[in-house]
Formats: sequence, C-alpha cells, structure tokens
Amino acid sequence: MAILTFIGAGQMASGLTFPAFENGHEIRLVGTPLDRKIIDRLRQDNYHLTLDRTLHDGIHYYQVEEMEKAIEGADVIIGGVSSFGVDWFADEVLPKLHKNVPVITVTKGMIDEPDGNMVDFPDYWQSTKAGKDLNLNAIGGPCTARELSDHDQTWVAFCGRDKDTLHKLKAIFSTPYYHISLSNDVKGVELSVALKNGYAMAVSLTIGLTEKNEGIGKVHHNSEAALFGQSVTEMQKLLKLAGVRDESLVFGVGDLYVTISGGRSRRIGVLLGRGYSYDEAKEKLKGETLEAVVIATRTARAVRAMAERGKADLKDFPLLLHVDEVINNGKPVNIPWQATEAEYFE
Amino acid sequence: MAILTFIGAGQMASGLTFPAFENGHEIRLVGTPLDRKIIDRLRQDNYHLTLDRTLHDGIHYYQVEEMEKAIEGADVIIGGVSSFGVDWFADEVLPKLHKNVPVITVTKGMIDEPDGNMVDFPDYWQSTKAGKDLNLNAIGGPCTARELSDHDQTWVAFCGRDKDTLHKLKAIFSTPYYHISLSNDVKGVELSVALKNGYAMAVSLTIGLTEKNEGIGKVHHNSEAALFGQSVTEMQKLLKLAGVRDESLVFGVGDLYVTISGGRSRRIGVLLGRGYSYDEAKEKLKGETLEAVVIATRTARAVRAMAERGKADLKDFPLLLHVDEVINNGKPVNIPWQATEAEYFE
Repeated sequence: MAILTFIGAGQMASGLTFPAFENGHEIRLVGTPLDRKIIDRLRQDNYHLTLDRTLHDGIHYYQVEEMEKAIEGADVIIGGVSSFGVDWFADEVLPKLHKNVPVITVTKGMIDEPDGNMVDFPDYWQSTKAGKDLNLNAIGGPCTARELSDHDQTWVAFCGRDKDTLHKLKAIFSTPYYHISLSNDVKGVELSVALKNGYAMAVSLTIGLTEKNEGIGKVHHNSEAALFGQSVTEMQKLLKLAGVRDESLVFGVGDLYVTISGGRSRRIGVLLGRGYSYDEAKEKLKGETLEAVVIATRTARAVRAMAERGKADLKDFPLLLHVDEVINNGKPVNIPWQATEAEYFE
Repeated sequence: MAILTFIGAGQMASGLTFPAFENGHEIRLVGTPLDRKIIDRLRQDNYHLTLDRTLHDGIHYYQVEEMEKAIEGADVIIGGVSSFGVDWFADEVLPKLHKNVPVITVTKGMIDEPDGNMVDFPDYWQSTKAGKDLNLNAIGGPCTARELSDHDQTWVAFCGRDKDTLHKLKAIFSTPYYHISLSNDVKGVELSVALKNGYAMAVSLTIGLTEKNEGIGKVHHNSEAALFGQSVTEMQKLLKLAGVRDESLVFGVGDLYVTISGGRSRRIGVLLGRGYSYDEAKEKLKGETLEAVVIATRTARAVRAMAERGKADLKDFPLLLHVDEVINNGKPVNIPWQATEAEYFE
C-alpha cells in the first residue's frame, strides 16, 4: 500500500483515483484554488461536480491550504493541473516536493520557444530551479476521465527517464481496465499527445462544415478521414522535427481519435466549421479557455519560427496554419484541400 | 479528353466515374461476370444497384463479353475488381492490355508468401507474365464510394513507379473534391491500406463488446481509441517489417478511420464483439465474403511465418493474432488487453 497525493482535483486526476483506490492505496486528493467547490462537495458525499461521478468512499480530500499536510509521507505525487496551471504547479507545488518521491503528471500541452523548439511540460518543469532534481514522469494517451471512472478499457503510456520508477508507477495504477505502456521517450509521448488537441479541432472543422451545408447531424466520413489522415501526416512531421521516436506517434493518434469523439476541442472545431467566428464560438462555449486553441497557436508559431530558420517547410503544415489563421486572424474556415495533396517520391 | 476504360463495375470503380466524367473524359464502364445485373440496370437509367447512386448520363456501359471493344483506343485502364477478383484480373484482363497504356487499380489487399513476405497486388500482377511489362499503378487511402459519388471531400494517394504517369493520372482525376497525393512507395501505400481492413474489424470488436455488456447503441470511446492506437502500433510494425517508408502509414491510418465508421469490416467485428461466433456472424451478413477476414488471416499467417524465421516477434501483434484465433479457430472474443501493454526503452 502506497500513499498517493493527487494535486489538482480536476476530472482527469479524479478519474485516476479509481484504479489507484481499487488497488488498495491511500488516496489524498488536493484541490487547486480553482477546485474549492469540487472539494467542498466531495467532502459531503464523494460526488465530483465536473466529472459527474461519485468517487470511492475513503478518499481523503484537502483544500489547497492543506497541501503540505497531504504531501507529508506521500510515496508518489500525481500532478493533476490543466495546461493553464503549469506555472502554478511550478511555483506552488514543485518547491514543496522531495526529490526522492516520484511525480507523475496528467497535464497535456507544450511550450514553444522563440527558435521554434517545442518543450513538453516534464522537461519544462525539470528546467526550473525547484524541479531540476525531481523525478518527473507523465501520462499520455487516449483516456477520457469519465470513461476511466466507468471502468471502460483504457490504454495509456507512462513516460519518464527512469525505468524502475516507471515499473513502480505502473504497479500502483495497473488494473484489469487501465493498461499502461512504458516509454522513456518523454518528449515524444508528451508532444504527440499535446499536438493532437489542435488537430482534433482541425478535423472537427469538417464535421461542422458538413452540418453547415447539409444540416445538423449529417455526417460525411470521407472528409473526416481525410483531415484525420492529414493531421497524422502533420503530427508525424512535427515529431520528426522534434527529433523524437516515431513509435511515440501512436499515443497521439489514439488520443486524436478519442478527442474527436467528444469534448471541447471537437465542439469548438464544429462551431467554427458551421460558420461561427472564433469569438462567437468561444461565446457559445461560455467563454471557456480552450487548450486546443492554445496548442494550435503555439504549434503554428513554432513551425513558423522553424521555417524562418530553414528547419521546417510551411508547405508541410497547411491544416495547422489554416486553423491558426481562423482562430488568430479571423479568417473564415476554408479547408486548404489542395495543399494537402503531397508528393512522396524517393 | 482521354478515353478511360474501367474494368469492374463495383462500387469503388463506379464512384470514381464521378470525378473522371466531370473532368470531361470519355468513360467506358465494363462489368465483370459478377456485374451483369449492374450493367443491365445502368443501361436502363444510369442507376447503380449496389452503389445506390445514379451515374452521370453519357457513360458507356459494357458487359464482360464486350471488354475488348471497350479497351480499344483507351488511354488509361482503371482496374475495379475486388480482392477476390485479383486472379481473374490477372488471367482475363492483363493479357488484353497494351504496355504503353497505364493501368490504375482500386483493389485493396495483400498476398502472403510462405516465408511471410507480404506482396501487394500491383507487385503481384507485375510478377505475372502478362503483367510484367505493364505500367501498373494503384489507389489507396480513405474513400468510401458513396461519399465520393456525393462529392464529399476525399483524400487518396495514387502510387506507382513512374512519376510522369502519376502526374498524368492525377490530372485526369483531380477535382475540387477529389484530392490526390502521389507516392512511388507502392508497397508501402498498398500494404498500409490493405492491413487496415483486418484492424477495422479488430477495433470494432470492442464496439460490439460494449453493446453486449451495456446494450445496443451504447458507446465507449476509451476502449475504441485503445484498439485504434494498438492497431496503428501493429500496422507501423508490419510496415517496418516490410521495409517500406513510414510516411505511407498515414494513408492506412486514414483508411482505418473511415472503415471503422461503416461497412462490412465494422459489421463483422461488432457482431463478433457482441458474442456471435464467426459462423453466426457470417450468416447474419448473409454469407458475404469478407475482405477483412481474408486480410487478417493472411497477415497473421505472414507474421507467424516471419516469427518462425526469427524476423518478427509474435508479442508485437497481440490484436492481430487474437482476431485470427477468433475467426479461424473459434475462440471467443477476449481482447488481450494486457498484451497491448508494451515497453519502449532505448
């Protein structure tokens, strides 16, 4: 039995309490400043307000002020913040951690540097003063938190630099419904699953376009599959530019598949495809901050920076750049179909 | 204006008449011995019985006995037989063709040799006496014939050995809704889109399993995405074993996506997942011959042959081998989830 302290009580971290609790571990779930109401309600009856599921009875809940108490004696720290909490996690959590306690995070995203280098979050945290000596690991792959909570069969990758740590983490979380591959290609796995958010929005544009032309609920699979294929093409090229292993692509591809099936990245893409401007679409989604928009913007900026330096060819990324034009320059959706026609001659 | 002779009046070849006819070419559509009723009806009112669409008025229709007349003067031959017509095409069509008239085929599939070598159809035909001097090209990628007929945006690859021929073929078929990439990795593109049929059936097992456990129409995305990811992993490994280019994977991935959305490969997988035996499932599909079953069987046999020779590791293909056990050895569906957990350490 291990003591597991989850920091961040959002949907994904809270979903992860299911396999961990069922394996007999002590679970301490700590809310961020944004999770106050979630923790209040969990303390009443274990019902999670945004996950819309009831967590296992026996989990210990903590508000953010109680974080240090929750960290004390923990065997593993699970980072559960969203990509908008990356710096909060760096500033408020990492300094409180002990270097011999492994950390594993569910945060998906990427930071682009001025030269176009794309930095995954574990590497970003490792580059901070408080993070440099920590044992940082991460979870990528196709997993929606509600279906994990419902014990649907789920397939993810744990990535990190130390094989023994990964085996230990796998033993803690593995269940007959939560399947864990291991990889030491941290940058590959993390970039792959980060990039997919922007592309899920991109594929969803054509779902919205079909609805605009033929009516809500109408579906065409050829055009969806076309943009799915183009997305995988561009993701594969981005991973090549990042110098990571091509086998890590599959976690992003699975994640792209599940993200197109539902969630905010799909909804914003569908709305844009139906003809709403980005501002209108955002308004319809109640002004929610959208990770897909952030990642698409950063990826496009990285590609442009690499292209300026002669390291990338803009012609390889027509879909990404179009999405960027739509969300950041107010361009109407007009899929650059012709630009997706490529030549592969050797 | 070119004269295009389509041999085989199945759904895919007939769907391809839309972009070709609209580009102003003369279209001659020749039925195989299996297409007699289709040609009869097309001659009445251009309605295609299995495609369930009305073809353009002005297309010339031929029964199989009139094939030679249809071939005379043709600038391009389009091969439209299914994978069950590969030898008929080799024996009855190839000997009638002229070596300076390019051929492009839509047939998807693969033949396994005793040592596990996987041979795509263009290469198989090229190895026959009648085919050895022909200029053979092929079409791969995600395209359902009905949606192509409906002018949905469609994205495919034309592959062949001669760049000029491919450019010429692209000019003939390109339209604002039919988008064509070009590749000279014939084996890569063709194997990639062939393999996807077996894997579409595999992913669909979990769709059926969910329905078995929770009721028809119930959907879980995590498990679908899990098997989608596992399928791409195994396809990527198969392409590596075949020694082809990794960029060709994307056409199979797009094709996998569209195939899971509908069609026979999905239906057989869903029925097996719901708990029907292979024989029962086949009966429910009215005894239809199923390309997915053939390709999964051949791929599994190839992997086993390569493994015996120390060239492949059976542990890399748990999903493929399970599907093979289900359809060929009567095993019940029981997804080998644990075997999909891999380690990627370098």
